[in-house]
Amino acid sequence: MASFAEATAVVRRRDSSAYEVGLDPQWCIGDKPNGGYLMAVLAAAGVAAAGPEHPHPLACSAHFLHAPAPRAAAVEVDVLRRGRSASQLRARLRQDERTCVEALFTLGRLDGDAEPWWGGEPAPALPPAAQCALLPARPPGADYTVPILDVVHERLDPATVRWATGEPSGRGELRGWASLADSSGWDALSLLVAVDAFPPATFDLGTAGWVPTLELTAYVRALPADGPVIVRQRARLVQDGLVDEACDVWDSRGRLVAQATQLAGVRVPAGPPPATH
Amino acid sequence: MASFAEATAVVRRRDSSAYEVGLDPQWCIGDKPNGGYLMAVLAAAGVAAAGPEHPHPLACSAHFLHAPAPRAAAVEVDVLRRGRSASQLRARLRQDERTCVEALFTLGRLDGDAEPWWGGEPAPALPPAAQCALLPARPPGADYTVPILDVVHERLDPATVRWATGEPSGRGELRGWASLADSSGWDALSLLVAVDAFPPATFDLGTAGWVPTLELTAYVRALPADGPVIVRQRARLVQDGLVDEACDVWDSRGRLVAQATQLAGVRVPAGPPPATH
Repeated sequence: MASFAEATAVVRRRDSSAYEVGLDPQWCIGDKPNGGYLMAVLAAAGVAAAGPEHPHPLACSAHFLHAPAPRAAAVEVDVLRRGRSASQLRARLRQDERTCVEALFTLGRLDGDAEPWWGGEPAPALPPAAQCALLPARPPGADYTVPILDVVHERLDPATVRWATGEPSGRGELRGWASLADSSGWDALSLLVAVDAFPPATFDLGTAGWVPTLELTAYVRALPADGPVIVRQRARLVQDGLVDEACDVWDSRGRLVAQATQLAGVRVPAGPPPATH
Repeated sequence: MASFAEATAVVRRRDSSAYEVGLDPQWCIGDKPNGGYLMAVLAAAGVAAAGPEHPHPLACSAHFLHAPAPRAAAVEVDVLRRGRSASQLRARLRQDERTCVEALFTLGRLDGDAEPWWGGEPAPALPPAAQCALLPARPPGADYTVPILDVVHERLDPATVRWATGEPSGRGELRGWASLADSSGWDALSLLVAVDAFPPATFDLGTAGWVPTLELTAYVRALPADGPVIVRQRARLVQDGLVDEACDVWDSRGRLVAQATQLAGVRVPAGPPPATH
Protein backbone atom coordinates (compact mmCIF):
# COMPACT_ATOMS: atom_id res chain seq x y z
CA MET A 1 0.00 0.00 0.00
CA ALA A 2 1.48 3.36 -0.99
CA SER A 3 1.69 5.90 1.83
CA PHE A 4 0.52 9.44 1.11
CA ALA A 5 4.14 10.61 0.85
CA GLU A 6 4.97 7.83 -1.62
CA ALA A 7 1.82 8.36 -3.66
CA THR A 8 2.55 12.08 -4.06
CA ALA A 9 6.33 11.91 -4.57
CA VAL A 10 7.44 14.06 -7.49
CA VAL A 11 10.80 13.90 -9.26
CA ARG A 12 12.01 16.85 -11.29
CA ARG A 13 12.97 16.12 -14.89
CA ARG A 14 16.44 17.18 -15.86
CA ASP A 15 16.52 20.44 -17.82
CA SER A 16 12.81 21.04 -17.40
CA SER A 17 10.27 22.57 -15.07
CA ALA A 18 8.21 19.38 -15.22
CA TYR A 19 7.96 16.68 -12.59
CA GLU A 20 7.41 12.94 -12.97
CA VAL A 21 4.80 11.33 -10.76
CA GLY A 22 3.36 7.84 -10.49
CA LEU A 23 -0.39 8.15 -9.94
CA ASP A 24 -1.13 5.37 -7.50
CA PRO A 25 -3.97 2.85 -8.05
CA GLN A 26 -4.53 2.78 -4.30
CA TRP A 27 -5.68 6.42 -4.19
CA CYS A 28 -8.58 5.77 -6.55
CA ILE A 29 -12.36 5.50 -6.69
CA GLY A 30 -12.75 2.46 -8.92
CA ASP A 31 -9.91 2.99 -11.39
CA LYS A 32 -10.03 6.80 -11.32
CA PRO A 33 -7.63 8.76 -9.11
CA ASN A 34 -9.47 10.77 -6.46
CA GLY A 35 -9.76 14.51 -7.23
CA GLY A 36 -8.32 15.64 -3.91
CA TYR A 37 -5.40 13.25 -4.39
CA LEU A 38 -4.73 14.77 -7.84
CA MET A 39 -4.84 18.25 -6.32
CA ALA A 40 -2.33 17.11 -3.68
CA VAL A 41 -0.02 15.75 -6.41
CA LEU A 42 -0.17 19.07 -8.25
CA ALA A 43 0.44 20.94 -4.99
CA ALA A 44 3.44 18.72 -4.19
CA ALA A 45 5.02 19.68 -7.51
CA GLY A 46 4.12 23.30 -6.89
CA VAL A 47 5.77 23.28 -3.48
CA ALA A 48 8.89 21.69 -4.97
CA ALA A 49 9.04 24.41 -7.61
CA ALA A 50 8.31 27.31 -5.25
CA GLY A 51 11.13 26.49 -2.86
CA PRO A 52 11.41 26.20 0.91
CA GLU A 53 10.04 29.63 1.88
CA HIS A 54 6.45 28.83 0.93
CA PRO A 55 5.94 25.14 1.72
CA HIS A 56 2.17 25.13 2.28
CA PRO A 57 -0.82 25.44 -0.04
CA LEU A 58 -3.01 28.32 1.19
CA ALA A 59 -5.47 28.47 -1.71
CA CYS A 60 -5.86 25.86 -4.46
CA SER A 61 -8.25 25.90 -7.42
CA ALA A 62 -8.42 22.97 -9.83
CA HIS A 63 -10.49 22.37 -12.95
CA PHE A 64 -10.80 18.74 -14.07
CA LEU A 65 -10.65 18.03 -17.81
CA HIS A 66 -10.04 14.28 -18.23
CA ALA A 67 -9.69 11.54 -15.64
CA PRO A 68 -6.10 10.26 -15.80
CA ALA A 69 -5.23 6.59 -15.47
CA PRO A 70 -3.40 5.46 -12.31
CA ARG A 71 0.08 5.27 -13.80
CA ALA A 72 2.95 7.57 -14.77
CA ALA A 73 2.12 11.19 -15.49
CA ALA A 74 3.86 14.54 -15.57
CA VAL A 75 3.19 17.78 -13.73
CA GLU A 76 4.23 20.99 -15.48
CA VAL A 77 4.64 23.98 -13.19
CA ASP A 78 4.90 27.68 -14.03
CA VAL A 79 5.72 30.03 -11.19
CA LEU A 80 3.64 33.15 -11.81
CA ARG A 81 4.87 35.30 -8.94
CA ARG A 82 7.28 34.97 -6.05
CA GLY A 83 6.29 37.37 -3.30
CA ARG A 84 7.50 37.95 0.21
CA SER A 85 4.65 36.19 1.98
CA ALA A 86 3.26 34.05 -0.84
CA SER A 87 4.10 32.47 -4.18
CA GLN A 88 1.54 31.92 -6.90
CA LEU A 89 1.78 29.31 -9.58
CA ARG A 90 0.02 27.27 -12.21
CA ALA A 91 0.31 23.49 -12.49
CA ARG A 92 -1.10 20.99 -14.90
CA LEU A 93 -1.23 17.23 -14.89
CA ARG A 94 -0.37 15.73 -18.27
CA GLN A 95 -0.74 12.16 -19.46
CA ASP A 96 -0.74 10.79 -23.01
CA GLU A 97 -0.18 14.24 -24.49
CA ARG A 98 -3.23 15.75 -22.89
CA THR A 99 -3.98 17.92 -19.89
CA CYS A 100 -6.07 16.08 -17.29
CA VAL A 101 -6.17 18.67 -14.51
CA GLU A 102 -5.13 22.30 -14.44
CA ALA A 103 -4.79 24.18 -11.17
CA LEU A 104 -3.72 27.47 -9.65
CA PHE A 105 -2.03 27.70 -6.26
CA THR A 106 -1.21 30.40 -3.77
CA LEU A 107 1.47 28.97 -1.46
CA GLY A 108 2.73 30.43 1.80
CA ARG A 109 3.78 29.39 5.27
CA LEU A 110 1.18 28.31 7.80
CA ASP A 111 1.56 28.76 11.52
CA GLY A 112 1.27 25.50 13.45
CA ASP A 113 -0.18 27.28 16.47
CA ALA A 114 -2.54 29.66 14.67
CA GLU A 115 -5.72 30.36 16.61
CA PRO A 116 -8.79 32.20 15.33
CA TRP A 117 -9.02 35.94 15.95
CA TRP A 118 -12.70 35.62 15.03
CA GLY A 119 -14.96 32.86 13.76
CA GLY A 120 -14.09 29.32 12.95
CA GLU A 121 -17.30 27.37 13.41
CA PRO A 122 -16.93 24.63 16.04
CA ALA A 123 -16.62 21.04 14.87
CA PRO A 124 -19.88 19.11 14.74
CA ALA A 125 -20.51 16.80 17.69
CA LEU A 126 -19.82 13.22 16.62
CA PRO A 127 -20.04 9.87 18.34
CA PRO A 128 -16.60 8.41 19.18
CA ALA A 129 -14.88 6.94 16.14
CA ALA A 130 -15.39 3.41 17.44
CA GLN A 131 -19.16 3.94 17.27
CA CYS A 132 -19.04 5.26 13.70
CA ALA A 133 -19.42 3.25 10.50
CA LEU A 134 -16.13 2.40 8.76
CA LEU A 135 -16.71 2.75 5.00
CA PRO A 136 -15.62 -0.44 3.21
CA ALA A 137 -13.28 -0.37 0.22
CA ARG A 138 -15.26 -3.31 -1.18
CA PRO A 139 -18.92 -2.44 -0.49
CA PRO A 140 -20.99 -5.61 -0.06
CA GLY A 141 -22.78 -6.52 -3.29
CA ALA A 142 -21.29 -3.61 -5.24
CA ASP A 143 -19.72 -4.09 -8.67
CA TYR A 144 -16.97 -1.57 -7.91
CA THR A 145 -14.27 -0.99 -5.31
CA VAL A 146 -13.08 2.16 -3.59
CA PRO A 147 -9.35 1.50 -3.06
CA ILE A 148 -8.75 4.88 -1.40
CA LEU A 149 -10.81 3.69 1.58
CA ASP A 150 -7.96 1.30 2.43
CA VAL A 151 -5.54 4.24 2.77
CA VAL A 152 -7.95 6.88 4.11
CA HIS A 153 -10.07 5.38 6.88
CA GLU A 154 -13.45 7.08 6.98
CA ARG A 155 -15.86 6.50 9.86
CA LEU A 156 -19.26 8.11 9.36
CA ASP A 157 -21.64 9.29 12.04
CA PRO A 158 -24.37 6.60 11.92
CA ALA A 159 -26.96 9.40 11.62
CA THR A 160 -25.49 10.31 8.21
CA VAL A 161 -24.90 6.85 6.73
CA ARG A 162 -28.42 5.49 6.37
CA TRP A 163 -28.26 6.11 2.59
CA ALA A 164 -25.98 3.04 2.48
CA THR A 165 -28.97 0.91 3.45
CA GLY A 166 -31.47 2.68 1.23
CA GLU A 167 -32.67 5.33 3.66
CA PRO A 168 -31.19 8.70 2.65
CA SER A 169 -32.03 11.35 5.23
CA GLY A 170 -32.76 14.03 2.64
CA ARG A 171 -30.39 16.39 4.44
CA GLY A 172 -27.49 16.09 2.01
CA GLU A 173 -24.89 16.02 4.76
CA LEU A 174 -22.18 13.50 5.72
CA ARG A 175 -20.10 13.83 8.88
CA GLY A 176 -17.35 11.65 10.21
CA TRP A 177 -13.78 10.94 11.17
CA ALA A 178 -10.92 10.48 8.72
CA SER A 179 -7.41 9.21 9.30
CA LEU A 180 -4.52 8.09 7.12
CA ALA A 181 -3.96 4.34 7.32
CA ASP A 182 -0.19 4.84 7.11
CA SER A 183 -0.29 6.59 10.53
CA SER A 184 1.72 9.48 9.14
CA GLY A 185 -0.75 12.08 10.42
CA TRP A 186 -2.42 14.81 8.41
CA ASP A 187 -0.41 17.72 7.06
CA ALA A 188 -1.05 20.73 4.85
CA LEU A 189 -0.75 18.66 1.66
CA SER A 190 -2.80 15.66 2.71
CA LEU A 191 -5.62 17.94 3.89
CA LEU A 192 -6.21 18.44 0.15
CA VAL A 193 -7.24 14.78 0.12
CA ALA A 194 -9.36 15.18 3.24
CA VAL A 195 -11.53 17.86 1.61
CA ASP A 196 -12.56 15.54 -1.23
CA ALA A 197 -12.31 12.04 0.25
CA PHE A 198 -15.85 11.58 1.58
CA PRO A 199 -18.57 10.11 -0.61
CA PRO A 200 -20.73 12.65 -2.44
CA ALA A 201 -23.16 14.30 -0.02
CA THR A 202 -25.79 13.70 -2.70
CA PHE A 203 -25.82 10.01 -1.68
CA ASP A 204 -27.76 11.30 1.32
CA LEU A 205 -30.34 12.63 -1.19
CA GLY A 206 -30.86 9.24 -2.78
CA THR A 207 -28.74 9.77 -5.88
CA ALA A 208 -26.67 6.85 -7.08
CA GLY A 209 -23.56 6.87 -9.19
CA TRP A 210 -20.46 8.93 -8.96
CA VAL A 211 -20.34 12.69 -9.05
CA PRO A 212 -17.56 13.92 -11.37
CA THR A 213 -15.90 17.04 -10.01
CA LEU A 214 -15.65 19.93 -12.47
CA GLU A 215 -13.99 22.39 -10.11
CA LEU A 216 -12.50 22.09 -6.62
CA THR A 217 -11.26 24.99 -4.49
CA ALA A 218 -9.56 24.37 -1.15
CA TYR A 219 -8.19 26.68 1.52
CA VAL A 220 -5.79 25.25 4.11
CA ARG A 221 -6.00 27.48 7.18
CA ALA A 222 -3.66 25.87 9.71
CA LEU A 223 -1.28 22.96 10.16
CA PRO A 224 -3.37 20.18 11.67
CA ALA A 225 -2.59 18.68 15.06
CA ASP A 226 -1.86 14.95 15.34
CA GLY A 227 -4.83 12.62 15.30
CA PRO A 228 -7.88 12.06 13.09
CA VAL A 229 -9.74 14.95 11.49
CA ILE A 230 -13.47 15.56 11.48
CA VAL A 231 -14.96 16.08 8.01
CA ARG A 232 -18.34 17.54 7.12
CA GLN A 233 -19.45 17.32 3.49
CA ARG A 234 -22.65 19.15 2.55
CA ALA A 235 -24.63 19.59 -0.65
CA ARG A 236 -26.08 23.07 -1.10
CA LEU A 237 -27.99 23.22 -4.40
CA VAL A 238 -28.82 20.43 -6.85
CA GLN A 239 -30.04 21.96 -10.09
CA ASP A 240 -29.73 21.44 -13.83
CA GLY A 241 -27.40 18.44 -13.53
CA LEU A 242 -24.97 20.17 -11.18
CA VAL A 243 -24.38 20.18 -7.44
CA ASP A 244 -22.11 22.31 -5.29
CA GLU A 245 -20.74 20.78 -2.13
CA ALA A 246 -19.05 22.52 0.79
CA CYS A 247 -16.52 20.63 2.90
CA ASP A 248 -15.07 21.69 6.24
CA VAL A 249 -12.31 19.87 8.12
CA TRP A 250 -11.41 20.21 11.81
CA ASP A 251 -8.31 18.82 13.49
CA SER A 252 -8.19 16.84 16.73
CA ARG A 253 -7.85 20.11 18.69
CA GLY A 254 -11.16 21.25 17.21
CA ARG A 255 -9.68 23.90 14.94
CA LEU A 256 -11.13 24.50 11.47
CA VAL A 257 -8.05 23.64 9.39
CA ALA A 258 -9.38 23.30 5.83
CA GLN A 259 -12.36 24.48 3.82
CA ALA A 260 -13.39 23.55 0.31
CA THR A 261 -16.11 23.96 -2.25
CA GLN A 262 -16.68 21.99 -5.41
CA LEU A 263 -18.99 22.00 -8.41
CA ALA A 264 -19.78 18.56 -9.79
CA GLY A 265 -22.06 16.84 -12.24
CA VAL A 266 -24.88 14.77 -10.78
CA ARG A 267 -27.71 12.61 -12.12
CA VAL A 268 -30.86 12.72 -10.06
CA PRO A 269 -33.60 10.12 -10.03
CA ALA A 270 -36.96 10.84 -11.63
CA GLY A 271 -39.34 12.45 -9.19
CA PRO A 272 -38.71 14.58 -6.15
CA PRO A 273 -35.89 14.13 -3.60
CA PRO A 274 -36.60 12.13 -0.44
CA ALA A 275 -38.49 13.83 2.36
CA THR A 276 -36.17 15.09 5.08
CA HIS A 277 -36.16 13.08 8.27
CA MET B 1 -20.19 56.36 -16.92
CA ALA B 2 -19.24 53.08 -18.58
CA SER B 3 -22.00 50.45 -18.61
CA PHE B 4 -21.07 46.91 -17.62
CA ALA B 5 -21.09 45.86 -21.28
CA GLU B 6 -18.79 48.73 -22.25
CA ALA B 7 -16.46 48.18 -19.29
CA THR B 8 -16.03 44.49 -20.17
CA ALA B 9 -15.86 44.79 -23.97
CA VAL B 10 -12.99 42.75 -25.39
CA VAL B 11 -11.53 43.07 -28.90
CA ARG B 12 -9.55 40.23 -30.37
CA ARG B 13 -6.08 41.08 -31.62
CA ARG B 14 -5.38 40.13 -35.19
CA ASP B 15 -3.36 36.93 -35.53
CA SER B 16 -3.43 36.23 -31.82
CA SER B 17 -5.48 34.54 -29.12
CA ALA B 18 -5.23 37.69 -27.00
CA TYR B 19 -7.90 40.30 -26.44
CA GLU B 20 -7.57 44.02 -25.81
CA VAL B 21 -9.59 45.50 -22.98
CA GLY B 22 -9.83 48.94 -21.42
CA LEU B 23 -10.03 48.52 -17.64
CA ASP B 24 -12.47 51.19 -16.60
CA PRO B 25 -11.74 53.66 -13.75
CA GLN B 26 -15.43 53.59 -12.86
CA TRP B 27 -15.32 49.91 -11.81
CA CYS B 28 -12.74 50.56 -9.11
CA ILE B 29 -12.27 50.73 -5.35
CA GLY B 30 -10.11 53.83 -5.07
CA ASP B 31 -7.88 53.44 -8.13
CA LYS B 32 -7.84 49.62 -8.12
CA PRO B 33 -10.19 47.67 -10.37
CA ASN B 34 -12.62 45.52 -8.37
CA GLY B 35 -11.72 41.81 -8.27
CA GLY B 36 -15.12 40.63 -9.45
CA TYR B 37 -14.96 43.10 -12.33
CA LEU B 38 -11.55 41.71 -13.34
CA MET B 39 -12.96 38.18 -13.20
CA ALA B 40 -15.83 39.31 -15.43
CA VAL B 41 -13.37 40.83 -17.93
CA LEU B 42 -11.43 37.55 -18.05
CA ALA B 43 -14.68 35.60 -18.42
CA ALA B 44 -15.80 37.89 -21.27
CA ALA B 45 -12.61 37.07 -23.17
CA GLY B 46 -13.06 33.39 -22.33
CA VAL B 47 -16.60 33.37 -23.65
CA ALA B 48 -15.44 35.09 -26.84
CA ALA B 49 -12.74 32.45 -27.32
CA ALA B 50 -14.95 29.47 -26.47
CA GLY B 51 -17.60 30.31 -29.03
CA PRO B 52 -21.39 30.47 -28.96
CA GLU B 53 -22.13 26.98 -27.62
CA HIS B 54 -20.88 27.70 -24.12
CA PRO B 55 -21.72 31.34 -23.42
CA HIS B 56 -21.95 31.24 -19.63
CA PRO B 57 -19.37 30.91 -16.86
CA LEU B 58 -20.32 27.94 -14.66
CA ALA B 59 -17.21 27.81 -12.46
CA CYS B 60 -14.51 30.49 -12.25
CA SER B 61 -11.35 30.47 -10.13
CA ALA B 62 -9.02 33.47 -10.09
CA HIS B 63 -5.74 34.11 -8.29
CA PHE B 64 -4.70 37.76 -7.96
CA LEU B 65 -1.01 38.60 -8.43
CA HIS B 66 -0.75 42.36 -8.96
CA ALA B 67 -3.44 45.03 -8.99
CA PRO B 68 -3.62 46.41 -12.54
CA ALA B 69 -4.13 50.11 -13.26
CA PRO B 70 -7.47 51.17 -14.77
CA ARG B 71 -6.30 51.50 -18.36
CA ALA B 72 -5.53 49.34 -21.37
CA ALA B 73 -4.64 45.71 -20.71
CA ALA B 74 -4.62 42.41 -22.58
CA VAL B 75 -6.31 39.11 -21.84
CA GLU B 76 -4.58 35.98 -23.13
CA VAL B 77 -6.82 32.93 -23.41
CA ASP B 78 -5.89 29.28 -23.86
CA VAL B 79 -8.73 26.86 -24.49
CA LEU B 80 -7.84 23.70 -22.58
CA ARG B 81 -10.75 21.51 -23.60
CA ARG B 82 -13.84 21.81 -25.75
CA GLY B 83 -16.44 19.31 -24.60
CA ARG B 84 -20.03 18.68 -25.51
CA SER B 85 -21.58 20.27 -22.45
CA ALA B 86 -18.71 22.46 -21.26
CA SER B 87 -15.49 24.16 -22.34
CA GLN B 88 -12.58 24.73 -20.02
CA LEU B 89 -10.00 27.42 -20.42
CA ARG B 90 -7.29 29.48 -18.82
CA ALA B 91 -7.14 33.27 -19.04
CA ARG B 92 -4.69 35.81 -17.76
CA LEU B 93 -4.77 39.56 -17.53
CA ARG B 94 -1.52 41.19 -18.63
CA GLN B 95 -0.41 44.79 -18.26
CA ASP B 96 3.09 46.26 -18.53
CA GLU B 97 4.62 42.87 -19.30
CA ARG B 98 3.33 41.23 -16.17
CA THR B 99 0.45 38.95 -15.23
CA CYS B 100 -1.99 40.67 -12.88
CA VAL B 101 -4.67 37.97 -12.61
CA GLU B 102 -4.74 34.37 -13.76
CA ALA B 103 -7.98 32.40 -13.85
CA LEU B 104 -9.49 29.09 -14.89
CA PHE B 105 -13.02 28.81 -16.28
CA THR B 106 -15.49 26.07 -16.96
CA LEU B 107 -18.06 27.49 -19.39
CA GLY B 108 -21.38 25.98 -20.40
CA ARG B 109 -24.96 26.94 -21.09
CA LEU B 110 -27.27 27.89 -18.24
CA ASP B 111 -31.00 27.34 -18.31
CA GLY B 112 -32.98 30.52 -17.75
CA ASP B 113 -35.80 28.59 -16.12
CA ALA B 114 -33.75 26.20 -13.97
CA GLU B 115 -35.38 25.37 -10.67
CA PRO B 116 -33.78 23.47 -7.76
CA TRP B 117 -34.28 19.71 -7.59
CA TRP B 118 -33.05 19.97 -4.00
CA GLY B 119 -31.64 22.70 -1.79
CA GLY B 120 -31.01 26.28 -2.61
CA GLU B 121 -31.25 28.12 0.68
CA PRO B 122 -33.98 30.79 0.62
CA ALA B 123 -32.95 34.41 0.31
CA PRO B 124 -32.58 36.27 3.62
CA ALA B 125 -35.52 38.46 4.55
CA LEU B 126 -34.61 42.09 3.88
CA PRO B 127 -36.40 45.38 4.37
CA PRO B 128 -37.57 46.91 1.05
CA ALA B 129 -34.73 48.51 -0.89
CA ALA B 130 -36.10 51.98 -0.16
CA GLN B 131 -35.57 51.36 3.56
CA CYS B 132 -31.99 50.15 3.07
CA ALA B 133 -28.83 52.26 3.25
CA LEU B 134 -27.40 53.24 -0.14
CA LEU B 135 -23.61 52.99 0.08
CA PRO B 136 -22.02 56.26 -1.06
CA ALA B 137 -19.23 56.35 -3.66
CA ARG B 138 -17.74 59.26 -1.73
CA PRO B 139 -18.10 58.30 1.95
CA PRO B 140 -18.43 61.42 4.14
CA GLY B 141 -15.10 62.35 5.67
CA ALA B 142 -13.19 59.53 3.93
CA ASP B 143 -9.94 60.17 2.09
CA TYR B 144 -10.85 57.70 -0.65
CA THR B 145 -13.67 57.12 -3.14
CA VAL B 146 -15.39 53.95 -4.28
CA PRO B 147 -16.26 54.70 -7.92
CA ILE B 148 -17.87 51.28 -8.47
CA LEU B 149 -20.71 52.31 -6.12
CA ASP B 150 -21.86 54.77 -8.81
CA VAL B 151 -22.33 51.87 -11.28
CA VAL B 152 -23.38 49.14 -8.83
CA HIS B 153 -25.99 50.50 -6.44
CA GLU B 154 -25.75 48.68 -3.11
CA ARG B 155 -28.41 49.11 -0.46
CA LEU B 156 -27.57 47.43 2.84
CA ASP B 157 -29.98 46.11 5.41
CA PRO B 158 -29.71 48.73 8.20
CA ALA B 159 -29.09 45.86 10.66
CA THR B 160 -25.80 45.10 8.87
CA VAL B 161 -24.48 48.62 8.25
CA ARG B 162 -23.86 49.90 11.78
CA TRP B 163 -20.10 49.39 11.28
CA ALA B 164 -20.27 52.52 9.08
CA THR B 165 -21.04 54.55 12.19
CA GLY B 166 -18.54 52.78 14.43
CA GLU B 167 -20.79 50.02 15.77
CA PRO B 168 -19.81 46.72 14.10
CA SER B 169 -22.22 43.97 15.07
CA GLY B 170 -19.51 41.34 15.51
CA ARG B 171 -21.45 39.00 13.24
CA GLY B 172 -19.29 39.47 10.13
CA GLU B 173 -22.26 39.52 7.80
CA LEU B 174 -23.54 42.08 5.28
CA ARG B 175 -26.86 41.72 3.46
CA GLY B 176 -28.49 43.94 0.92
CA TRP B 177 -29.78 44.70 -2.54
CA ALA B 178 -27.60 45.31 -5.58
CA SER B 179 -28.53 46.67 -8.99
CA LEU B 180 -26.64 47.93 -12.01
CA ALA B 181 -27.00 51.68 -12.45
CA ASP B 182 -27.12 51.30 -16.23
CA SER B 183 -30.46 49.45 -15.86
CA SER B 184 -29.18 46.66 -18.08
CA GLY B 185 -30.15 43.96 -15.59
CA TRP B 186 -27.94 41.25 -14.20
CA ASP B 187 -26.69 38.43 -16.41
CA ALA B 188 -24.34 35.47 -16.05
CA LEU B 189 -21.24 37.65 -16.58
CA SER B 190 -22.20 40.55 -14.36
CA LEU B 191 -23.06 38.17 -11.51
CA LEU B 192 -19.27 37.75 -11.26
CA VAL B 193 -19.26 41.39 -10.14
CA ALA B 194 -22.15 40.84 -7.75
CA VAL B 195 -20.27 38.14 -5.82
CA ASP B 196 -17.41 40.53 -4.99
CA ALA B 197 -18.99 43.99 -4.98
CA PHE B 198 -20.02 44.30 -1.35
CA PRO B 199 -17.65 45.77 1.22
CA PRO B 200 -15.57 43.21 3.13
CA ALA B 201 -17.70 41.43 5.71
CA THR B 202 -14.82 42.04 8.12
CA PHE B 203 -15.95 45.71 8.34
CA ASP B 204 -18.73 44.25 10.50
CA LEU B 205 -15.97 42.93 12.80
CA GLY B 206 -14.43 46.36 13.29
CA THR B 207 -11.51 45.97 10.89
CA ALA B 208 -10.57 48.98 8.83
CA GLY B 209 -8.73 49.10 5.56
CA TRP B 210 -9.19 47.12 2.42
CA VAL B 211 -9.02 43.37 2.17
CA PRO B 212 -6.92 42.31 -0.84
CA THR B 213 -8.33 39.19 -2.48
CA LEU B 214 -5.82 36.39 -3.04
CA GLU B 215 -8.27 33.90 -4.55
CA LEU B 216 -11.88 34.15 -5.72
CA THR B 217 -14.03 31.21 -6.84
CA ALA B 218 -17.52 31.78 -8.23
CA TYR B 219 -20.25 29.42 -9.43
CA VAL B 220 -23.07 30.85 -11.55
CA ARG B 221 -26.05 28.53 -11.12
CA ALA B 222 -28.82 30.11 -13.19
CA LEU B 223 -29.54 33.07 -15.43
CA PRO B 224 -30.93 35.75 -13.12
CA ALA B 225 -34.42 37.17 -13.57
CA ASP B 226 -34.86 40.88 -14.15
CA GLY B 227 -34.63 43.13 -11.13
CA PRO B 228 -32.19 43.68 -8.28
CA VAL B 229 -30.35 40.81 -6.65
CA ILE B 230 -29.99 40.08 -2.95
CA VAL B 231 -26.38 39.64 -1.80
CA ARG B 232 -25.16 38.10 1.44
CA GLN B 233 -21.44 38.41 2.23
CA ARG B 234 -20.17 36.52 5.28
CA ALA B 235 -16.81 36.11 6.96
CA ARG B 236 -16.13 32.61 8.28
CA LEU B 237 -12.66 32.51 9.88
CA VAL B 238 -10.23 35.35 10.55
CA GLN B 239 -6.85 33.88 11.44
CA ASP B 240 -3.18 34.52 10.82
CA GLY B 241 -3.77 37.59 8.63
CA LEU B 242 -6.28 35.85 6.35
CA VAL B 243 -10.06 35.74 6.10
CA ASP B 244 -12.34 33.61 3.96
CA GLU B 245 -15.65 35.08 2.92
CA ALA B 246 -18.64 33.30 1.44
CA CYS B 247 -21.03 35.18 -0.83
CA ASP B 248 -24.47 34.07 -2.02
CA VAL B 249 -26.63 35.91 -4.54
CA TRP B 250 -30.37 35.48 -5.12
CA ASP B 251 -32.35 36.91 -8.01
CA SER B 252 -35.65 38.79 -7.79
CA ARG B 253 -37.53 35.49 -8.05
CA GLY B 254 -35.74 34.30 -4.91
CA ARG B 255 -33.52 31.75 -6.67
CA LEU B 256 -29.93 31.22 -5.55
CA VAL B 257 -28.16 32.23 -8.78
CA ALA B 258 -24.51 32.64 -7.76
CA GLN B 259 -22.21 31.43 -5.00
CA ALA B 260 -18.66 32.45 -4.26
CA THR B 261 -15.85 32.03 -1.79
CA GLN B 262 -12.70 34.09 -1.44
CA LEU B 263 -9.52 34.11 0.59
CA ALA B 264 -8.16 37.55 1.36
CA GLY B 265 -5.57 39.29 3.45
CA VAL B 266 -6.84 41.24 6.45
CA ARG B 267 -5.31 43.35 9.23
CA VAL B 268 -7.08 43.10 12.52
CA PRO B 269 -6.96 45.63 15.35
CA ALA B 270 -5.05 44.87 18.53
CA GLY B 271 -7.23 43.11 21.07
CA PRO B 272 -10.23 40.89 20.63
CA PRO B 273 -13.03 41.34 18.06
CA PRO B 274 -16.17 43.23 19.10
CA ALA B 275 -18.75 41.40 21.18
CA THR B 276 -21.62 40.12 19.07
CA HIS B 277 -24.87 42.08 19.42
